[in-house]
Amino acid sequence: MVDRSKAFGWAANDESGVLSPFHFSRRENGENDVTVKILFCGVCHSDLHTIKNHWGISRYPIVPGHEIVGIATKVGKNVTKFKEGDRVGVGVIIGSCESCESCNQDLENYCPEVVFTYNSRSSDRTRNQGGYSDVIVVDHRFVLSIPDGLPSDAGAPLLCAGITVYSPMKYYGMTEESGKHLGVNGLGGLGHIAVKIGKAFGLRVTVISRSSDKESEAIDRLGADSFLVTTDSQKMKDAVGTMDFIIDTVSAEHALLPLFSLLKVSGKLVTLGLPEKSLELPMFPLVLGRKMVGGSQIGGMKETQEMLEFCAKHNIVADIELIKMSDINSAMDRLAKSDVRYRFVIDVANSLVTESSAEILEEHVDHGVSITSRF
Amino acid sequence: MVDRSKAFGWAANDESGVLSPFHFSRRENGENDVTVKILFCGVCHSDLHTIKNHWGISRYPIVPGHEIVGIATKVGKNVTKFKEGDRVGVGVIIGSCESCESCNQDLENYCPEVVFTYNSRSSDRTRNQGGYSDVIVVDHRFVLSIPDGLPSDAGAPLLCAGITVYSPMKYYGMTEESGKHLGVNGLGGLGHIAVKIGKAFGLRVTVISRSSDKESEAIDRLGADSFLVTTDSQKMKDAVGTMDFIIDTVSAEHALLPLFSLLKVSGKLVTLGLPEKSLELPMFPLVLGRKMVGGSQIGGMKETQEMLEFCAKHNIVADIELIKMSDINSAMDRLAKSDVRYRFVIDVANSLVTESSAEILEEHVDHGVSITSRF
Repeated sequence: MVDRSKAFGWAANDESGVLSPFHFSRRENGENDVTVKILFCGVCHSDLHTIKNHWGISRYPIVPGHEIVGIATKVGKNVTKFKEGDRVGVGVIIGSCESCESCNQDLENYCPEVVFTYNSRSSDRTRNQGGYSDVIVVDHRFVLSIPDGLPSDAGAPLLCAGITVYSPMKYYGMTEESGKHLGVNGLGGLGHIAVKIGKAFGLRVTVISRSSDKESEAIDRLGADSFLVTTDSQKMKDAVGTMDFIIDTVSAEHALLPLFSLLKVSGKLVTLGLPEKSLELPMFPLVLGRKMVGGSQIGGMKETQEMLEFCAKHNIVADIELIKMSDINSAMDRLAKSDVRYRFVIDVANSLVTESSAEILEEHVDHGVSITSRF
Repeated sequence: MVDRSKAFGWAANDESGVLSPFHFSRRENGENDVTVKILFCGVCHSDLHTIKNHWGISRYPIVPGHEIVGIATKVGKNVTKFKEGDRVGVGVIIGSCESCESCNQDLENYCPEVVFTYNSRSSDRTRNQGGYSDVIVVDHRFVLSIPDGLPSDAGAPLLCAGITVYSPMKYYGMTEESGKHLGVNGLGGLGHIAVKIGKAFGLRVTVISRSSDKESEAIDRLGADSFLVTTDSQKMKDAVGTMDFIIDTVSAEHALLPLFSLLKVSGKLVTLGLPEKSLELPMFPLVLGRKMVGGSQIGGMKETQEMLEFCAKHNIVADIELIKMSDINSAMDRLAKSDVRYRFVIDVANSLVTESSAEILEEHVDHGVSITSRF
């Protein structure tokens, strides 16, 4: 086992998902590594799914967090992109095989051996732990440069939520021609950034939501062009066949047929959520309207860097509620009820206080499976 | 009502789907029309669905048939593309609004006012009748030129089955780069032409089938590169993640998950069948593998003409079993059991014999709905 040094964060120890102070270790900085003092970490819905074992793949204890912004404090001898003192980011993935077809196309996110930032195994078979912690050590290929002008706190959520909506906009052809009409289904962490990035790409953006609660802020603050409430049957009818694309951020089980109806001929529905069950796929709109539904999962490292530059240029950040580390459990309760506009970010550096009562992790060898190996 | 002249064919009169001799009328040739003496007509699975009212939209009596090759016997004064004596084709559609976004993009097939060749209303509210008949009168925009060298009998099925597989190959990017790996699920009327056109586009083609019955002919006669039997779990496992595209021609309810598993990252599944129920859409492969499923329905007139030229150039025709008009009911029984390799074609001109017992249709005004208006 490689040399390791002390780290400290907050971990979930079982499916209750309750987070508590936790001592563990990180590997020492290696020749390809960047050691990052963590400043801020966003609170993603995946963090909640994982600490509560919603996907059935959680291995406790788990320190979540994959929207990390911090300062490089040490760089390995092979690292040329970064130097000590640089502002850097770490997102959802921290490793991949670096030699497969996906990796060779800068799509490390689809590598069959992708290593997620937490709830995964590292090469020495210890568990990787995420950004609700003081420090992280990451191979430089998986470290991002935070552009000047992009704030560390409100910029942090871009590392997951930002790239998750940016990548499918590029891949599914939404950015090739301005003025196309994009529907954003669900206005949460992903959705509110999809509105901003969509507008920056020159799209006409309509938010699709179950209630009118967020209508004025969607239009006035986020910049959406219009707001469609799905329970308003007349407006839904009027909107049939008007959208070129829909980004569907809803994770809960839901009907796709009303979304297909909103699409024009050859319209594209992109789903980003992972409902536990299969959804119903109505075949008639697909065939008779040449419509499609596709997915997307975060993005590769090159595209993530590109997205950060794009957001810095267009002044796009997340709308955040900054919290202390000790607020995390009540924040998770509120997140479960979608009671946040639109992303919690933990002020890690200023609020993570070592407590003597925190337990010490004994490193353990792990033979777990990863979520990607099942598909 | 415009002037009309006598026509004769075979029609289904109720949901039994039994076809019998039937006298009706066609409109007289108008200034934009081509009158076609029908030589051959392919027997498409949609004909079977329609005469038995599987989709719940059939209005009897129905003369089916939309894979028509014949000779132009009269052309209207505005018709410049065709002259008397030309070999011409009529496919699945005979009208559209000619002014909507779809029509302006040569996608008449997705026009909300598309008029199908049979089981549809004409502008004078009589019912349109298809190609199991002696003559048809069609607006010249919806008439195809049959290229020299393309046989009339084995070429007829290209007008539906051919364009139905050709169009999605182009639209979904299968033809941009040769050597990509295409799976063809189901080896029937559509599937066997998908193999031939796929090979002509330089794709590596694997037939996916429930049984090994057609393995040797798929490879030896149709030119497929390989054959995958879905019940062979070891071979299915070996084939996981190997295909760039799958064209799914299966109309019956079936599982999509095994097909998604065969696709590579970013792989595309194109469904052409219309199962009566929704299928199950597993979300994990979509999101974690950036896979998609899309549909397609025949093609526009410009692309259909392009497809005919392509098939003539590459010597692609359907494998057919030529039948007499009087064989049609037993042919339909066999088609229902997939007992045909791979397309029945009716030798209309040589076997349609007027019988004195055939009933006379009284023209009736119709207020029916079309299948497209529901989506």
